[in-house]
Amino acid sequence: MDINFSDFVAITSTQNEHVKNVVKLQRDSATRRERNLTVVEGRRELRIALASGAKVAQIFWCAELTDLPHPVAEADECFRVSKAVYQKIAYRDTTEGLLATIQPPARTLEHFRPHSDNPLVIVVERVEKPGNLGAILRTADAAGVDAVMVCDEACDLYNPNVIRASIGSVFSVPAFTLSSEACIAWLKRHEVQILTAQLQDSLPYYDVDMTRATAIVMGTEATGLTQAWRDAADAHILIPMAGMMDSLNVSVSTAILTFEAVRQRRG
Amino acid sequence: MDINFSDFVAITSTQNEHVKNVVKLQRDSATRRERNLTVVEGRRELRIALASGAKVAQIFWCAELTDLPHPVAEADECFRVSKAVYQKIAYRDTTEGLLATIQPPARTLEHFRPHSDNPLVIVVERVEKPGNLGAILRTADAAGVDAVMVCDEACDLYNPNVIRASIGSVFSVPAFTLSSEACIAWLKRHEVQILTAQLQDSLPYYDVDMTRATAIVMGTEATGLTQAWRDAADAHILIPMAGMMDSLNVSVSTAILTFEAVRQRRG
Repeated sequence: MDINFSDFVAITSTQNEHVKNVVKLQRDSATRRERNLTVVEGRRELRIALASGAKVAQIFWCAELTDLPHPVAEADECFRVSKAVYQKIAYRDTTEGLLATIQPPARTLEHFRPHSDNPLVIVVERVEKPGNLGAILRTADAAGVDAVMVCDEACDLYNPNVIRASIGSVFSVPAFTLSSEACIAWLKRHEVQILTAQLQDSLPYYDVDMTRATAIVMGTEATGLTQAWRDAADAHILIPMAGMMDSLNVSVSTAILTFEAVRQRRG
Repeated sequence: MDINFSDFVAITSTQNEHVKNVVKLQRDSATRRERNLTVVEGRRELRIALASGAKVAQIFWCAELTDLPHPVAEADECFRVSKAVYQKIAYRDTTEGLLATIQPPARTLEHFRPHSDNPLVIVVERVEKPGNLGAILRTADAAGVDAVMVCDEACDLYNPNVIRASIGSVFSVPAFTLSSEACIAWLKRHEVQILTAQLQDSLPYYDVDMTRATAIVMGTEATGLTQAWRDAADAHILIPMAGMMDSLNVSVSTAILTFEAVRQRRG
């Protein structure tokens, strides 16, 4: 489908109902859930979302900030908005002039099959900040992991802050939200070894074989993993640290552990 | 020195001159440079700053948010501030009720000696965001690197955003700002091999020996390293990536490369 200049309906008032709806979707997870919609900002992010099967509901384009977008998708509605309107609906400091409301792809673990015989999976339990989850998804994409399991059913994977921090990786990586119990059951059923990142009774991570089917399981920076994970573990791993601080950022730790698995599996 | 309750001068007005001064120090690098002062928030960060030789100018304590601080330092002035005042001077969402203006420790590369024969050094050229520099310093602390060289003389190492993101590591890690030219000269003089992270003509990072004296050199996410660094390199290294995105966050890449050096040097 080509989108023509004339197909865009102009919005110049920040009080427009569509504008208010986007602001509400940006801020309110209950609204996102209820309408099964979220907000994607940026051309690159939108492209990745579409490639993953997301459906565009509305496109908001600001001609003062960017060129006419190429036909990006079948959108239900296309709006051309003023700069003031765009700044009201966009979250980013460096606005890109293109924003969409989308219906995220439906994902259920039930139909998921890892693409390799010895899958590499990242598990995060109760990750604290959307920025950290986004960074972990970006790492997962770069490392080519089979899946990211987000064990916190309250977590909104398609929170606009997660989408932004992941620069779209939340759409390119198979990511699922589920309970720790369901996740442990899935890993056991698929004979994936469970390596929990924790300080107690642990081996340095580089002394553990990660070439077989492996899940790297990360807890929160503040309180670590729950007992269910510690009990389910095949091995506990830690990153030996030298300094005055007592921990690395959780997204940094996840990257170090994940790329060690990639290193061991090379060639 | 014990700090008694009575030694604290009360400030309840957000228009107080001391309050305005802190706000100015938080925001304005020229003011920080001119007065040789910066702002540290949080008990832990302040403790680390003091251990590194920083001198406290003023302490601002909010009794409604935290207990009376233990004697933390010889401070020139101690203020007890209202919650409204504290919220005006503090940057953090989760305010801790303790903030200080400090004179950062003076550091010159001239008198710096690495603590090992085969030092591990992180070099960043024109790092873009205070948050990324802070995260790199946190990683440097955890990895026990000998030094972090920040090649951008415009960079304000003691920017409050860097201090916050580093959770104080900017004080515990020997960190220097200097020109790329001076940094290259220093590394050559100390016979430290230069490994530049770049995509062109590069080896996978895990195939390079990092057990000898090594500098890991990182450019910006957008434009990479300048030619001077590429020319000075003993080897070019890259992190092989599998995904749809074209780069990892620079602080994440730095951590992966640095901890590979730590891994090779273990035992």
